Amino acid sequence: MEPTKKHSWRAKLHEIIYEADTPVGKLFDVILLIAILASIVLVMLESVESIDNKYHGLLDISEWIITILFSIEYIARIVVVKKPIKYITSFYGIIDLLSTIPKYLSLLLVGSHSLVAFRALRLLRVFRILKLTRYIGESTNFVRALKTSRAKIAVFLSFVLILCIILGTVMYLVESKESGFTSIPRSVYWAIVTLTTVGYGDIAPITPLGQFIASIIMIMGYGIIAVPTGIVSSEMTRINKKDVHTNTQSCPNCLDSSHQDGSHFCHKCGHELNHD
Amino acid sequence: MEPTKKHSWRAKLHEIIYEADTPVGKLFDVILLIAILASIVLVMLESVESIDNKYHGLLDISEWIITILFSIEYIARIVVVKKPIKYITSFYGIIDLLSTIPKYLSLLLVGSHSLVAFRALRLLRVFRILKLTRYIGESTNFVRALKTSRAKIAVFLSFVLILCIILGTVMYLVESKESGFTSIPRSVYWAIVTLTTVGYGDIAPITPLGQFIASIIMIMGYGIIAVPTGIVSSEMTRINKKDVHTNTQSCPNCLDSSHQDGSHFCHKCGHELNHD
Amino acid sequence: MEPTKKHSWRAKLHEIIYEADTPVGKLFDVILLIAILASIVLVMLESVESIDNKYHGLLDISEWIITILFSIEYIARIVVVKKPIKYITSFYGIIDLLSTIPKYLSLLLVGSHSLVAFRALRLLRVFRILKLTRYIGESTNFVRALKTSRAKIAVFLSFVLILCIILGTVMYLVESKESGFTSIPRSVYWAIVTLTTVGYGDIAPITPLGQFIASIIMIMGYGIIAVPTGIVSSEMTRINKKDVHTNTQSCPNCLDSSHQDGSHFCHKCGHELNHD
Amino acid sequence: MEPTKKHSWRAKLHEIIYEADTPVGKLFDVILLIAILASIVLVMLESVESIDNKYHGLLDISEWIITILFSIEYIARIVVVKKPIKYITSFYGIIDLLSTIPKYLSLLLVGSHSLVAFRALRLLRVFRILKLTRYIGESTNFVRALKTSRAKIAVFLSFVLILCIILGTVMYLVESKESGFTSIPRSVYWAIVTLTTVGYGDIAPITPLGQFIASIIMIMGYGIIAVPTGIVSSEMTRINKKDVHTNTQSCPNCLDSSHQDGSHFCHKCGHELNHD
Repeated sequence: MEPTKKHSWRAKLHEIIYEADTPVGKLFDVILLIAILASIVLVMLESVESIDNKYHGLLDISEWIITILFSIEYIARIVVVKKPIKYITSFYGIIDLLSTIPKYLSLLLVGSHSLVAFRALRLLRVFRILKLTRYIGESTNFVRALKTSRAKIAVFLSFVLILCIILGTVMYLVESKESGFTSIPRSVYWAIVTLTTVGYGDIAPITPLGQFIASIIMIMGYGIIAVPTGIVSSEMTRINKKDVHTNTQSCPNCLDSSHQDGSHFCHKCGHELNHD
Repeated sequence: MEPTKKHSWRAKLHEIIYEADTPVGKLFDVILLIAILASIVLVMLESVESIDNKYHGLLDISEWIITILFSIEYIARIVVVKKPIKYITSFYGIIDLLSTIPKYLSLLLVGSHSLVAFRALRLLRVFRILKLTRYIGESTNFVRALKTSRAKIAVFLSFVLILCIILGTVMYLVESKESGFTSIPRSVYWAIVTLTTVGYGDIAPITPLGQFIASIIMIMGYGIIAVPTGIVSSEMTRINKKDVHTNTQSCPNCLDSSHQDGSHFCHKCGHELNHD
Repeated sequence: MEPTKKHSWRAKLHEIIYEADTPVGKLFDVILLIAILASIVLVMLESVESIDNKYHGLLDISEWIITILFSIEYIARIVVVKKPIKYITSFYGIIDLLSTIPKYLSLLLVGSHSLVAFRALRLLRVFRILKLTRYIGESTNFVRALKTSRAKIAVFLSFVLILCIILGTVMYLVESKESGFTSIPRSVYWAIVTLTTVGYGDIAPITPLGQFIASIIMIMGYGIIAVPTGIVSSEMTRINKKDVHTNTQSCPNCLDSSHQDGSHFCHKCGHELNHD
Repeated sequence: MEPTKKHSWRAKLHEIIYEADTPVGKLFDVILLIAILASIVLVMLESVESIDNKYHGLLDISEWIITILFSIEYIARIVVVKKPIKYITSFYGIIDLLSTIPKYLSLLLVGSHSLVAFRALRLLRVFRILKLTRYIGESTNFVRALKTSRAKIAVFLSFVLILCIILGTVMYLVESKESGFTSIPRSVYWAIVTLTTVGYGDIAPITPLGQFIASIIMIMGYGIIAVPTGIVSSEMTRINKKDVHTNTQSCPNCLDSSHQDGSHFCHKCGHELNHD
């Protein structure tokens, strides 16, 4: 086996595993996606006692099949990549490892419940595939909108949190302990449940004053929800607008193409623009 | 009866049944709409045990009247249309049949509960009438906004689902089983109930750590709701903007075409505009 | 007493009662507003059993005072106005009468519970005062936004209703009757409670399939809420934009003043515009 | 000690305590922020009975340390500032005092529960620090949006309140008292809980008519939420738009001033622009 041949063989596998431009690469991604989703469904079903009691054997075998598949994939990724250490220590490398080993560990550590958490990590692998297939590209606009309004949203959430702590403390003092407001953290929890309009009803005010304050909190929550929506809406409107630029004018002199609609001269070099 | 006469008779009926331009055609649609809504009310009332016990005879007769009306309509549609097979195999043809036969089947199959589902299908027939009367035309703008932002909304919903699965798994591990988090699917169900701010309260965290994580989920849900709203808002703002210029006037002198509605002279060069 | 003097006396009272331009007229409105709000508080307090038992005498006297005040006002309105019949048969004339007589009727009809409803009508009188003081003028923009998007909102609400009926019927068939889905109307009620993200929890699905469908409904409700918001947002953005018109140009020829920003010639008559 | 030396020493401390431009000043703010948050966590933990029983001594000592720290800070603020009376009578001066004394008072007044409220006031001090560090500057845009739409939001909230009072009264008359609608204030409370889509479920209609009216309220609440969102969104879109043109460049030739950011030449006449 010459090194060039080996290289081409590795390069081919690399293209299949790490890229999604070729039909085989796409097929690989689709199969991997199905395997991940199947493994998540398995984790879910296993947690349902009645199903686990009935089909324990079947679920166990399926889990082994998926674990072996993931093991092969993990080894293939290490073999194929040029810098194995870099892959192993990367974010997805660690996730790949953690989502593969739980079944092996269960042989050593009998009945370890918390291994479920590691198997749930497999879901994170979905993002890598989506990234590969550029599906997430559809959402760049809204990710951009979130990024530019990140600071505003952080300020807003801090404000909501401070509000909930103050309101929760007030309710703790006002409400009787029988209605569930037994401590400030619990009251703050209630304030968050109320302000976000979730409203479980596990804790609910029973005194008239408590219900009055609760009403104010609810109406506030109903009004405050407009703020994050307003932030994201206006941000997306702005981003959309930039995309709209209906003209495709390009300056014949400096080739700049971001001209305002209705411009007669290039705003960069002053050269006259051609009109279409 | 000559064929021409028969044809004109059929054409007239066709116009009445399938179109809504003539007064008789409109009347037919209104009567059909009332019949459909009445039949839906019947299905509803029949499902209420106390009412069904009291007025079973009356409800039965009413159902028979509506069934016969729908049967006549169904036959008329087949007779009148040029290609009966195409109608019968069409979406609305199948719905028409399925929403007519349950009562006949109930003669053969005594007490078949699930026939209710077929009768509920009648509601879908409402859409055909609304379509005919161009009422739905009012909503084209928002349907267009939904369509252009379909991909973004799909990405957003996938993101929400993945989030709920991860959060549900975490809560399953964190919360005690007594508070309702008995399996991962149930916990995911709870996460969806919480993130969408529905908050039934049938399952609610009772441990401090569980309530802390729940608080984070609620605030996330409160903030995340801004995203679909932002997408649709900005999309509709863009579509609305295009609609603002309903005229297609172009100045015969300077060819400028961004004239305000109702303009008589070009706002760029002052030349008189041609009216269409 | 000459007719002119009487007329001026009536005209003055008319100005006080029906207008809000003079200081006395404003004072009258403020007093009336306080009286209305006080009477509403009275109705509320009376409905609370513990308070009614304790302070029945006080509440009764207060109600009589307010009833007499309203009676005087009602008679004054009839005396002062030029066409008393028109006032009496007008919307606010009927409300004024209905909100005055309950206490008198209670002398004849002992313990009539439903008279409370008539007393609650007093709240509607608040709108007349708000209208007078032009306070509502602040909200014209958003009323305009609601009006222009009325058709869209109607289509949207019909769509939501049809959706709830279909989903409610499906849940009625899917869910067991023990969990509260005892009839289709109840199931439709549950579907509305869920889709609007209210989520009482008095009826909640307990079967896995029911919870799965419920999850879909919730996520739909979470996404659908974007539609009315998008409609109103884009409508208000459009209305706001029209208000922005930063120029105050007025054509020296035809006096039209609704010129686009940057216009050099009047778009109505073609006359050159003066630039500021 | 000469006055000048003392002055410089006081000026330095003033810069550290009241400003955040120097590294030491920033460090002071960070330490104060941590102390405030720690004291809030303390208040919270103390209210949890099980924790208070276990770690009462530790919590007590921690509270004393923080109280002494705040006392030193309070005295330092008085010493350092030029007009101590003005500081003491200012909003933050009073808060600083109130948030410091509870522990001292607890020596005199044994077991006074309501002192917790004063300690919770410490949270308000966070705003001063945030203000200093100009972090809140990030939110000016949305504060501006809230301010300009304040009148609209007030009208909207009044409208919601009046609606809830009317609907609550109707439900009080319609619903049986067993389902929780025992008085009008309680029914109004329920109407607010429902309209804002919180939906505790502690009070829920059980009669068909009550559930029908409740459905209408929910759908209204679902639609009405679009209004505040629409107000804030359109306001922020407008403010954002103004921000887009951060330059104040004006063409020296044709005086046009609507230049894109980064323009070097006038887009109207092609003349070179002056840079500031």
